[in-house]
Amino acid sequence: MAHDAIGIEALRAYFEKDYFAAFVGVEIVDTGPGTALVRLRVDQRHRNSLGMAHGGALFTLADMAFAVASHTRGLSAVAVNTTMTFMKAAYGDVLYARAREVSRNRRLATYLVEVMDEPGEVLCLFQGTVYIKGDPVARPDR
Amino acid sequence: MAHDAIGIEALRAYFEKDYFAAFVGVEIVDTGPGTALVRLRVDQRHRNSLGMAHGGALFTLADMAFAVASHTRGLSAVAVNTTMTFMKAAYGDVLYARAREVSRNRRLATYLVEVMDEPGEVLCLFQGTVYIKGDPVARPDR
Amino acid sequence: MAHDAIGIEALRAYFEKDYFAAFVGVEIVDTGPGTALVRLRVDQRHRNSLGMAHGGALFTLADMAFAVASHTRGLSAVAVNTTMTFMKAAYGDVLYARAREVSRNRRLATYLVEVMDEPGEVLCLFQGTVYIKGDPVARPDR
Amino acid sequence: MAHDAIGIEALRAYFEKDYFAAFVGVEIVDTGPGTALVRLRVDQRHRNSLGMAHGGALFTLADMAFAVASHTRGLSAVAVNTTMTFMKAAYGDVLYARAREVSRNRRLATYLVEVMDEPGEVLCLFQGTVYIKGDPVARPDR
Repeated sequence: MAHDAIGIEALRAYFEKDYFAAFVGVEIVDTGPGTALVRLRVDQRHRNSLGMAHGGALFTLADMAFAVASHTRGLSAVAVNTTMTFMKAAYGDVLYARAREVSRNRRLATYLVEVMDEPGEVLCLFQGTVYIKGDPVARPDR
Repeated sequence: MAHDAIGIEALRAYFEKDYFAAFVGVEIVDTGPGTALVRLRVDQRHRNSLGMAHGGALFTLADMAFAVASHTRGLSAVAVNTTMTFMKAAYGDVLYARAREVSRNRRLATYLVEVMDEPGEVLCLFQGTVYIKGDPVARPDR
Repeated sequence: MAHDAIGIEALRAYFEKDYFAAFVGVEIVDTGPGTALVRLRVDQRHRNSLGMAHGGALFTLADMAFAVASHTRGLSAVAVNTTMTFMKAAYGDVLYARAREVSRNRRLATYLVEVMDEPGEVLCLFQGTVYIKGDPVARPDR
Repeated sequence: MAHDAIGIEALRAYFEKDYFAAFVGVEIVDTGPGTALVRLRVDQRHRNSLGMAHGGALFTLADMAFAVASHTRGLSAVAVNTTMTFMKAAYGDVLYARAREVSRNRRLATYLVEVMDEPGEVLCLFQGTVYIKGDPVARPDR
């Protein structure tokens, strides 16, 4: 890998300018090489009339885990394709998404993301592929 | 079809309680049997650091078109699976998503959604399937 | 586009070496810039115990339309991701898949494919993205 | 679960009538509650001109693991949607697909499938959802 992996503080700084994720309220909890754990504290804004977290909120949570995990290698990347299966209704007050890298080559990388409630039950399964643009992620902490 | 199709005012009333879509700012523009057109006026909240609409905002827009179209038959439904391909960066100030029903049987229905900018260029292609629960959509206008 | 589009005879010659498609029996019927129509005459080998065409046969049919359409621009490409929704059981003796290009840039292109029976009813909806490798498709007819 | 899980011999008998899988040469290696491992010995018929296993052959392999795993609960089911990401070229002579159940309720169940070569490297990632029809899988060995 031409570029070193980068740490959680650099990733947080980079994704601060991802205004939509901040607007929705998704927080970066943990990162590692090819992995990310993010969190959403669910309130009224994120729900539908049945009290469940909305599909768009669940997607934004999963997508943030995907985006962060795909930037941990230190190179910027853009989403090509995502698939999300909605398996169980999400009633919890705190939801997590955990992403892991399944494959990565020079131009493409694929991630698997699970959206979970606090007891750890998997509610949604997300799979996404990025195109690696190749420019280094800005590293304001170095 | 056991239940009549319902009109745009009933659908707007039904989706008003979809707080996340309202929070993000997605509006219902037009509906018909198995179809929906929705709109997002993009501002700073929806963008990322490069000035493009964020994947979560684009998904929420497409998902709303999908949700509305799948309720036009008058029966409630829940998303089973969605796929979204991100084809072009979304720089416009006004974005639309147009959904059409590709297939529908008693329990499952599938929709194709295009996210477009104002010149009508297709930016994202979304495909989604719902499970039809079978209870009628509340019709407060009747 | 650096390379000219190529014609149906060159595409047939190129895909002759795609032994699996030939083994399954998929034929190229028509091609155009970014489009392809392919056919499968369904017999016992392609069915399951209920007499319907098998998911693998339906996928191979759709995938061939996708592959041919993505090569009509004259550059070789490999599949990155495919999604297929199975909407209706396929009982017909002749099935078609029609692919059209939804988007194409220098490195990625996306196609939408419909699998149809002879009356033209859509049975499956397929969406796929290729990575464009950039080497020209061999053109034995020139 | 109203119906007991069924064993590998009953599943082999049931899938014998899945002529396409037999025609392609996919074999059931192992099954368990919600899981399946299947194998394809790759020969010339399954390859393309570059010597790699064809996308249709890889899909048929993954789809068989998905189908078998979704029948291990003893109830018949039909595919609703599948997604497949092609991550690495498949050059091996023996390929496997391993499916596991991620979620199952009364009507819908979702499976994750990995296609691997003999060293165990993951080549393709497949995700699929079935609709559970509810009729028991025939059990000729009881």
